[in-house]
Amino acid sequence: MKLVKQQTAQSTPLKEKTTTAMPTTRAKDPPTRRAFLVGATSVVGAAAAHVLLTPFLGNAADVTDDPTRVPGAPATEYGQRSPFERVRRLAKPQRSRTPLQALHGVVTPSALHFERHHNGVPRIDPSRHRLLVHGLVERPLIFTMDELKRFPAVSRLAFLECSGNSGQEWKGPRGTSAQEIHGLTSTSEWTGVRLSTVLGETGRHAEATWMLAEGSDAAAMTRSVPLDRILGEALLCYAQNGEPLRPEQGYPLRLLLPGWEGNTCIKWVRRLKLTSAPLMTREETSKYTDVMPDGTARQFTFEMEAKSVITSPSGGQRLPGPGFVEIRGLAWSGRGRVERVDVSVDGGKRWRTAALQSPVLPKCHTRFRTAWQWDGREAVLQSRCTDETGYRQPTHEELVAVRGTNSYYHYNAVQSWKIDEDGRVSNVQV
Amino acid sequence: MKLVKQQTAQSTPLKEKTTTAMPTTRAKDPPTRRAFLVGATSVVGAAAAHVLLTPFLGNAADVTDDPTRVPGAPATEYGQRSPFERVRRLAKPQRSRTPLQALHGVVTPSALHFERHHNGVPRIDPSRHRLLVHGLVERPLIFTMDELKRFPAVSRLAFLECSGNSGQEWKGPRGTSAQEIHGLTSTSEWTGVRLSTVLGETGRHAEATWMLAEGSDAAAMTRSVPLDRILGEALLCYAQNGEPLRPEQGYPLRLLLPGWEGNTCIKWVRRLKLTSAPLMTREETSKYTDVMPDGTARQFTFEMEAKSVITSPSGGQRLPGPGFVEIRGLAWSGRGRVERVDVSVDGGKRWRTAALQSPVLPKCHTRFRTAWQWDGREAVLQSRCTDETGYRQPTHEELVAVRGTNSYYHYNAVQSWKIDEDGRVSNVQV
Repeated sequence: MKLVKQQTAQSTPLKEKTTTAMPTTRAKDPPTRRAFLVGATSVVGAAAAHVLLTPFLGNAADVTDDPTRVPGAPATEYGQRSPFERVRRLAKPQRSRTPLQALHGVVTPSALHFERHHNGVPRIDPSRHRLLVHGLVERPLIFTMDELKRFPAVSRLAFLECSGNSGQEWKGPRGTSAQEIHGLTSTSEWTGVRLSTVLGETGRHAEATWMLAEGSDAAAMTRSVPLDRILGEALLCYAQNGEPLRPEQGYPLRLLLPGWEGNTCIKWVRRLKLTSAPLMTREETSKYTDVMPDGTARQFTFEMEAKSVITSPSGGQRLPGPGFVEIRGLAWSGRGRVERVDVSVDGGKRWRTAALQSPVLPKCHTRFRTAWQWDGREAVLQSRCTDETGYRQPTHEELVAVRGTNSYYHYNAVQSWKIDEDGRVSNVQV
Repeated sequence: MKLVKQQTAQSTPLKEKTTTAMPTTRAKDPPTRRAFLVGATSVVGAAAAHVLLTPFLGNAADVTDDPTRVPGAPATEYGQRSPFERVRRLAKPQRSRTPLQALHGVVTPSALHFERHHNGVPRIDPSRHRLLVHGLVERPLIFTMDELKRFPAVSRLAFLECSGNSGQEWKGPRGTSAQEIHGLTSTSEWTGVRLSTVLGETGRHAEATWMLAEGSDAAAMTRSVPLDRILGEALLCYAQNGEPLRPEQGYPLRLLLPGWEGNTCIKWVRRLKLTSAPLMTREETSKYTDVMPDGTARQFTFEMEAKSVITSPSGGQRLPGPGFVEIRGLAWSGRGRVERVDVSVDGGKRWRTAALQSPVLPKCHTRFRTAWQWDGREAVLQSRCTDETGYRQPTHEELVAVRGTNSYYHYNAVQSWKIDEDGRVSNVQV
């Protein structure tokens, strides 16, 4: 019933739009047109509808604007989006952020998947790319892409998140939009060969407990990861959303460690070395560690903890007016499935459980939705993710109480969006 | 063990490749390089590996070919695929086919989703697009795109298939590749509003048992569908794989009837009319009906029956030589989930059950895989899908025995791929 009221209210602006859009139609048959708008059925037959419809589909003064009157474009070999669509990544030289507030479902279009690189996106000829696997192995081997693709393949949907995502929020509400604050996370369907399959070829010494992975970008990005913790799920990926990896995602080959901080999922990977200890590279000592209040540093904080964000309404957007609003957002956890997402519209005093869109997959963005009737008064929207381990996304206060504010990485506190009486949405911390 | 043998065999061509690629390296340190290739570990330490690696990653004579030596490209607002990737749709003016043999997983990149249109792809300004819902409703209403997007949304992965897909095969093996024969099917994550939600706004008369849907393309594509059979799942979609629909998929709005022939999923939809009977449009009388052996026509054959195709190896490809092959393919059913896929390598005498890649979703492409050791002798590969209703994909003979060969639509027989001794793969019917 609320929905019906809201939709009825919505019909009013439509009347104004169509009136201004159709001077000729207005003159031509006011009673019939009016019949539509007041919703009477009597005079609205199929014929009348046919006659009336065209003006609604474009500017009646411009015939080419009626798509039924001109043949359309032919099929193409590789499609492009509509010229009317302008959504884009927020791009700086070494990173770009996904426009979460503009996307639907859970699959991020590859063209809008976030980027993070430390010395640019290399241009790699896949026929020349090689993967060296060496160190504490029985047989060091070098693989071509064709050889890797010939192994048994695995596909899975998984999110990636830069551990610096929303890091600016440690010190207070800094960002404005969901994209600016949380846009360093995306979800794709990844396809590749299991790391365990490749190591089955090289063999592995008993003391091989860690693995160094090195990229072939100009930063030669290098990280150490504990072997036994990753072997179950680690993939060497060559495809993303059906196609070969995009260049900014590591074309032609990347390591994927589902649920772990993006930086460990080495892109353009050219070398894997089995070792008996971490190699303490720059990116796991001076970077990608979390400085605690006492000055000590948390190191090797691999798993991205449960997090969520309301993407609509979200910062920078404006509600058209009171009435029905579907609150929509994304939740995820590096530890497994999203168990529950609670939503508050009063800054965390009361919570309701949102509906989760199936399928709910482990270590994958999960879409949540809940209905809200906005009364036009100030409100603060929040979402809170609980994952299958029972871990509950903390508030800003809870997170800072434990971690302090020296950290930059792994900020996963509840996001608060303030709705003003004029419908404007802004980033706050309550 | 087989896999190891195969991989060892595979390493041989690699030796030749790298040798020709690296004259300088060959001169520089033959013993160490040779150590890689024979697989001895003794002399291959991390340092040696570092020194050795660069030549393996490109042509040593061209420094800019070593991606670690030059800064890469900056982040971009909307990504593009690698210039080394050339896979494309097989495009004719009114249709284009998805390169199934080149894709991974189940999500079809929107740029490669098949197309079928009857008078081209219209260019539509979404701010001017309207949906009229009328006929046997209580309140005829016209909706803007903003109004439709404000309703509660639903997302789901679902395949689409043109009922003419592989129709040329009724009269014998005609096509050459998986793309040419089966490329009129694709899978996307679709997002939109339930048709039932929209009809909740207009109301519905008791005698409203059918619905006419009309597109705003230059063909004004129009079909009738039985209302009660579609209400459970029908969506009015505005998004595909996270982004707005692509123009060739019905931008800004299409009807999606999961599992039903693509032609009923009216694109660029501008009008829905509730009726008490089908309106017998051109596209459901002279077209999209199946002429039976006795000359009568099956009409309103909506559901796409269970089907599958091995995409690798497939027609036009060539196996590099005997050894390990992962047989990969796609299976789907318009009636629900894929229950099982059986694969034969001897033209259907013996069958093995393939592994299904999770998640296995209803009315969605499902990826199957099975390992095969090719002995280098002639072979005929087949896959056979059984869906959750127990329906089993028929052989060509079984299908023709029931339907004859007057039909063009709804061909879903088992596909046979012949492997010659030289590894070439071709389309046959056995």
